[in-house]
Amino acid sequence: MATSVPTQPAYPTDGGCIFCKIVAGQIPCYKVYEDAQMLAFLDIGPIVAGHTLLIPKGHYASILDVPEAVSAALGAVLPRLARAVCAAAGVAACHVLTNAGAEASQSVGHLHYHILPRRAGDGYHLPWPAGKVTPERAAELVRQISAQMR
Amino acid sequence: MATSVPTQPAYPTDGGCIFCKIVAGQIPCYKVYEDAQMLAFLDIGPIVAGHTLLIPKGHYASILDVPEAVSAALGAVLPRLARAVCAAAGVAACHVLTNAGAEASQSVGHLHYHILPRRAGDGYHLPWPAGKVTPERAAELVRQISAQMR
Repeated sequence: MATSVPTQPAYPTDGGCIFCKIVAGQIPCYKVYEDAQMLAFLDIGPIVAGHTLLIPKGHYASILDVPEAVSAALGAVLPRLARAVCAAAGVAACHVLTNAGAEASQSVGHLHYHILPRRAGDGYHLPWPAGKVTPERAAELVRQISAQMR
Repeated sequence: MATSVPTQPAYPTDGGCIFCKIVAGQIPCYKVYEDAQMLAFLDIGPIVAGHTLLIPKGHYASILDVPEAVSAALGAVLPRLARAVCAAAGVAACHVLTNAGAEASQSVGHLHYHILPRRAGDGYHLPWPAGKVTPERAAELVRQISAQMR
């Protein structure tokens, strides 16, 4: 966790986390961007060409756990990074995705956004099995989500 | 675009955009959250139960086009909204995804984040065909993306 000792980083860290080790320089990465709070680097297992990750330097398990201010800082970097990744990949489209939790296939337990450049014919298929929601179930969800957001 | 006329919204709008019509109240939605800059509502074609959208009220085509400050404001809302959606759906996991551009299956040309609650056995499968990047290609991408980020 953050401490007042000047030599410690000003964000929470997890000694067993591979991304924390990348942040600390203990494991190398293909770094494309860094600032005081953020790090971006290539995914070493790209699912599309140019697949890039953006992480906060602080260790937060996922977007479900990150402080609002850190999430806002990630949001501030994403458009510029997505444009840079698309330009480098020579494409005009991308997904920006973060997976939170095991059931969402989160592979490393340190919040990370995937920037996934897309081009026609690249062979990647994102399924989109659109369904329906009943008015009754929708009303229930509205009530429940709204209550949480108050 | 933003104007000084008090009755006009303080953000860009697009008369032909279905999400702008929702923001303006011309088309109904299952609203779960609203503030001065943001609106969140249920996706009427949910790909998983509880599928929710977060949009800026202003019309920006995608994350590739949105001003940094608006993207940061979206980022600030996402953790709380993702937690609320997961709680309402009764799950502990989710994807947070925005698609930018036709090749990334963007369906409405107004920036929107999908919050996709996930549970074991929900039948949705996100393909993850991890590949490899050569050191040479990685170095080239690092050089190109870094240059854009400077």
